[in-house]
Amino acid sequence: MTRLDIDALIRAAEAAADVAGAVIRPFFRAGLSADLKSDASPVTIADRTAEQAMRAVLGERFPEHGILGEEFGLQNAQAGLRWVLDPIDGTRAFITGRPVFGTLIALLQDDRPILGVIDQPVTGERWIGAAGRPTSFRGPFGGRAGCRPCATLAEAELSLTTPEMFGPEDQPHWERLHQAVRRTSFGGDCYGHGLLALGQIDIVAEATMKIWDWAALVPVIEGAGGRVTDWKGRRLAPDSDGHTLAVGDPALLEQAVSLLAG
Amino acid sequence: MTRLDIDALIRAAEAAADVAGAVIRPFFRAGLSADLKSDASPVTIADRTAEQAMRAVLGERFPEHGILGEEFGLQNAQAGLRWVLDPIDGTRAFITGRPVFGTLIALLQDDRPILGVIDQPVTGERWIGAAGRPTSFRGPFGGRAGCRPCATLAEAELSLTTPEMFGPEDQPHWERLHQAVRRTSFGGDCYGHGLLALGQIDIVAEATMKIWDWAALVPVIEGAGGRVTDWKGRRLAPDSDGHTLAVGDPALLEQAVSLLAG
Repeated sequence: MTRLDIDALIRAAEAAADVAGAVIRPFFRAGLSADLKSDASPVTIADRTAEQAMRAVLGERFPEHGILGEEFGLQNAQAGLRWVLDPIDGTRAFITGRPVFGTLIALLQDDRPILGVIDQPVTGERWIGAAGRPTSFRGPFGGRAGCRPCATLAEAELSLTTPEMFGPEDQPHWERLHQAVRRTSFGGDCYGHGLLALGQIDIVAEATMKIWDWAALVPVIEGAGGRVTDWKGRRLAPDSDGHTLAVGDPALLEQAVSLLAG
Repeated sequence: MTRLDIDALIRAAEAAADVAGAVIRPFFRAGLSADLKSDASPVTIADRTAEQAMRAVLGERFPEHGILGEEFGLQNAQAGLRWVLDPIDGTRAFITGRPVFGTLIALLQDDRPILGVIDQPVTGERWIGAAGRPTSFRGPFGGRAGCRPCATLAEAELSLTTPEMFGPEDQPHWERLHQAVRRTSFGGDCYGHGLLALGQIDIVAEATMKIWDWAALVPVIEGAGGRVTDWKGRRLAPDSDGHTLAVGDPALLEQAVSLLAG
């Protein structure tokens, strides 16, 4: 494979995030009902239209790349470079008017994420991570990319999108972690992971995560000094089981794994 | 008592929200540790300084009014008009960098809230409710004041700040409500109540709420067409037990009370 032009790839990812945001913003707090089951629901329309717009932007620049999205499946399955898209990560936040959902764009090379963008199209916040580079962040509310030190779980700020994501097998494991940390806050999706990459949160452990939910988070968090694994401390891969663990300080990884995997 | 000049009271509340925001914003995502137990923690400093600034603004305009705040207690206890202040409602959101906490300012006349402001100083969103007037809202992300119709719990969007707020006696009651609704999202504090007043959320049921947590919510939500009561459907009062129930559509009130109080 030829050497990658990371800057061109980042520009493409940003262009994709821009069009997704333009599609999504008019649907935010638009006052329409949000029936997740109907193909005509606003969330479905926003999701599908934003994914199509991102596919068009990326496909025009890189017709040879693969693209995987939740709504429209996989195209160019044989390509070694594959974009992975989630137009609206945090559907519940989106449909309740909370500006803490996000658009996720990742690029995988041979199944490993080498580029990730978390974009909040309402607040105008954007995180960009690329393998071997420090994560960048911009937005109007302040914050700087970089995870913070946190040596022990007893000092750690834990975040969880919703306790409803855990089945009966996960619950006791997560509860052990929950009891070990200093404090837990709820809500978040990709935005909580972005806050971990800003040194505001120390640990996020989730379940039922699809590849489009986690792929973009890996370069963002690792480029900020953190780690992302499954609940056993293993690197995430397309065949991972949906359990994800993100820590800002790598010192927390083993402590968290011992509670989550034990 | 002389007739109240509601517009002057609203202007004063807005001025108080403005100074609180100016105090709070520099502490948001400032990267300092947030030790809730220490008087020198950033959250404590932001909280205390914002409350002092609001007391100064309100006291200068209305020296005869009472003022109650979490940090500095009650002044002018005998006054029939009493301001009730919570500089940072949603401490966990604030200290984890989520722009969904709020500053709460209420005015009570003989223990009943007649004016309420919910201010998000980072996003620039502000809700203003006053008895007998429609609630107003402004902010950069869109949304219009006004609760939405929602005839049954089965269609309702429920919001909860954190499941940790429920003790063992509350848990089964809340769980009945949780099971009856269409969907639940987490996080929120006053911001979730603001979203209910924008027709984005249908029901919020919380516990351990102090008067400074709920007083400002009442005029905002009722001026948007909703209702705020305790879990038995009774009007909130200074001696309420900390259980609050907010519904956007009054039709939900009886259904929710039957589950929460049963």
